[in-house]
Amino acid sequence: MAFVKKELKKKSENISDWYNDVVLKAELADYGPVKGTMVIRPYGYALWETTQQIFDKMIKAAGVQNAYFPLFIPMSLLAKEKKHVEGFSPELAVVTHGGGEKLAEPLAVRPTSETIMYSMFAKWIQSHRDLPLLLNQWCNVVRWEKRTYLFLRTTEFLWQEGHTAHATHDDAIAFANKAHEWYRQVFEEYFAMPVILGRKSATEQFAGAAFSLTVEALMPDGKSLQSATSHDLGQNFSKVFDIQFSSKDGKREYVWQTSWGLSTRALGGLFLTHGDDDGLILPPKIAPIQVVIVPITKTVDAYVARVKEALVATGVRVLVDESDDSMGRKFNKWEMKGVSVRIEIGEKEVAGETVTIILRDTHEKKQIQWKECVTQMDSLLNEIQQRLFDKQKAFLDRHTFTAYSYEEFKKIMSTTKGFIHALWCEDATCEKAIKDETKATTRCLPLDAKEEKGVCIYCGKPAYHRWIFGQSY
Amino acid sequence: MAFVKKELKKKSENISDWYNDVVLKAELADYGPVKGTMVIRPYGYALWETTQQIFDKMIKAAGVQNAYFPLFIPMSLLAKEKKHVEGFSPELAVVTHGGGEKLAEPLAVRPTSETIMYSMFAKWIQSHRDLPLLLNQWCNVVRWEKRTYLFLRTTEFLWQEGHTAHATHDDAIAFANKAHEWYRQVFEEYFAMPVILGRKSATEQFAGAAFSLTVEALMPDGKSLQSATSHDLGQNFSKVFDIQFSSKDGKREYVWQTSWGLSTRALGGLFLTHGDDDGLILPPKIAPIQVVIVPITKTVDAYVARVKEALVATGVRVLVDESDDSMGRKFNKWEMKGVSVRIEIGEKEVAGETVTIILRDTHEKKQIQWKECVTQMDSLLNEIQQRLFDKQKAFLDRHTFTAYSYEEFKKIMSTTKGFIHALWCEDATCEKAIKDETKATTRCLPLDAKEEKGVCIYCGKPAYHRWIFGQSY
Repeated sequence: MAFVKKELKKKSENISDWYNDVVLKAELADYGPVKGTMVIRPYGYALWETTQQIFDKMIKAAGVQNAYFPLFIPMSLLAKEKKHVEGFSPELAVVTHGGGEKLAEPLAVRPTSETIMYSMFAKWIQSHRDLPLLLNQWCNVVRWEKRTYLFLRTTEFLWQEGHTAHATHDDAIAFANKAHEWYRQVFEEYFAMPVILGRKSATEQFAGAAFSLTVEALMPDGKSLQSATSHDLGQNFSKVFDIQFSSKDGKREYVWQTSWGLSTRALGGLFLTHGDDDGLILPPKIAPIQVVIVPITKTVDAYVARVKEALVATGVRVLVDESDDSMGRKFNKWEMKGVSVRIEIGEKEVAGETVTIILRDTHEKKQIQWKECVTQMDSLLNEIQQRLFDKQKAFLDRHTFTAYSYEEFKKIMSTTKGFIHALWCEDATCEKAIKDETKATTRCLPLDAKEEKGVCIYCGKPAYHRWIFGQSY
Repeated sequence: MAFVKKELKKKSENISDWYNDVVLKAELADYGPVKGTMVIRPYGYALWETTQQIFDKMIKAAGVQNAYFPLFIPMSLLAKEKKHVEGFSPELAVVTHGGGEKLAEPLAVRPTSETIMYSMFAKWIQSHRDLPLLLNQWCNVVRWEKRTYLFLRTTEFLWQEGHTAHATHDDAIAFANKAHEWYRQVFEEYFAMPVILGRKSATEQFAGAAFSLTVEALMPDGKSLQSATSHDLGQNFSKVFDIQFSSKDGKREYVWQTSWGLSTRALGGLFLTHGDDDGLILPPKIAPIQVVIVPITKTVDAYVARVKEALVATGVRVLVDESDDSMGRKFNKWEMKGVSVRIEIGEKEVAGETVTIILRDTHEKKQIQWKECVTQMDSLLNEIQQRLFDKQKAFLDRHTFTAYSYEEFKKIMSTTKGFIHALWCEDATCEKAIKDETKATTRCLPLDAKEEKGVCIYCGKPAYHRWIFGQSY
């Protein structure tokens, strides 16, 4: 039994080493042959598929339709919006040859699809009747990285990118907010990760946006992860791509746009957040396997089948481990893979019409009647889901501070880390100085921030809002 | 009403012009800004999503798991299997720069993923316990093309590629056959397209395969479309990628492999097959919208809502067209988009508790009780599905010939075209000569072909099987 446990590095000792180790050993992902790339293995990909199903249902209910746009973007198209190309140029992969010939114009492998999509929007949108245009695509994107951090930073990643066009700025802002709220639901209700909703500073916002909304999560090491973003693009792109419509009163106007994205990076946040020294802990709502049944002897097969079928009939995702591994290895394996509930069934359980259940998060072990186990499994899984969230919420609260002096600020950032609320003058010079000195960046201005009259924690000039600062992934 | 119809080119006059026209006007797809690329619009993408759901269910029931491998393949990896790289080299897009620097080794954008997947298989497969390994990925691939034929030939396309590894050759062959049968089901049972199942000639098979199975469909112009393929890879790749396992009796052996793929190309075949001069005709089983309701006046809204809800409750995919277009435009639009059933509801229908239904494929129009319409819709849609298949089956039968002389062969290929069964000596020289002279290639050796004793239709040397020849897309 000690075999696997000994092998897995301890989260309590070094979270970064543990993370790489558990992602590889739980078979979530592996390093690809090209530097910076990653292979998503079936256990990891199943989590992405569940995330896709959850999110796809939300956006389709709101009238968003899926589509697919080309991978390659001509450099001239990418360069049309000045801030956009400045932001993405250093990260591009460039195709220079195709079909054995040098291309007349190099092609960028999409880092994001605003430019290629909006060149088409200009063609499709003519009248106010064509608005709102609500599109989304699930695809791969490439942003050049030399150092891989599995899921969290890879050259290629998978995501959804939503892109909408509206007749008024109010409509666009409302949609950006709607996407922001969808992301909150994904993280809080499914990933069991409490998040902070807010607006990015001008320095930190998306290249080409009027403003960016962000969902920020706090990791166990006190660093924050930008987990999904939603942008009001204003008319920045519609003006350069000439996306105009004739309004109800016959005027030609530029559309107002949004874009919003959630990527496989979010899964990295999920794995980092909930695990412990024994491995992953996956929230039941998105776990590919919610319950694993381990038969202790071969003689209990019929009983095991009956319990499994009854659980499957209630909608629970169950796997029976019939491999010829030792019991110890099986227990460790499913603990490491973060399955919420393990059911052990031996002769003793069959005799008493019971099952032994072991909860992954609390290690609680108890024997209950098998019929009870079936009828109560759904609420048991919900309890686990809620407990994981509550635990993280308590952690977030313990690691959220208000700093009234820069000394205090520096002390927190050099010890526990976490989120620090602090007054800031909104000048990029102070933002940069704070970053250089403490590694902390502005994470966001929380949506519920109230206006105050105070002074910037760094320069002492007037400041009106408490921003959240944190070190980031 | 004549407005849209006049605009749409006629299938009966020039199928190629009609096809491009209807794909654009029905908003299935549009040309992308880079030569050879295509944008899949929501109406076209919804068909791909349905195809994905259908196929994903089939493969998962057989234990296949989805995963995701990197887009970029180092050229050295691609070059490991000699025939494979020879086959794909002329079609590659190559990334030479990343993150602002010239790369030490150029990267190919995947044209297919055998090489990158199998470099990982070598790491993951150790023992017979790791077999069979059954993986699939849904992704984009790139094969350089200069001339676009929407859906049918584009630089980038979407597909699934299944890749499996087995302990024995028999197991691999059985799996290749299983995938082949799945493809038959997709085409015949969902796309309403009768297909021929067979094996490719050595010239036509996949670069690197031991043999390739194909699903061939006949288009209305008598040309055939290779619609999906399934390959027995033998040990060709396992030997060069060193994928070995220890067998039950402790020997080191190379695995036996398969790969199999279905792409967005299949949708092109679907559109070509069923349409007519009025536009698309989509088989109900995969149509994004099966029934469209057109209210004739504003006064019937409550009644329309009742009919819609009752239909939705039976699982039918319904859309109510509440746009402010004219009736004529609405009728033409939904005909062009190939919706199986149109329901018209006006004051007359409300008064009589009826609806007027118009079938897309036969243009039959009748008035029936609305409750009857609801209870019978499912069987009506099934009848339409079957009728579309039967029509194509009759067409296929009429255009399938046996040629007993090369003169006869040439005559068919220069007139009606179609599938020609003909004895061939299986020498690539004859195959090439026939292609040069008639544009017809070997499509496949049908699975049910019987051994005969005869002579090659071209060279007169001994021949033992009747192969199917046809001109291809």
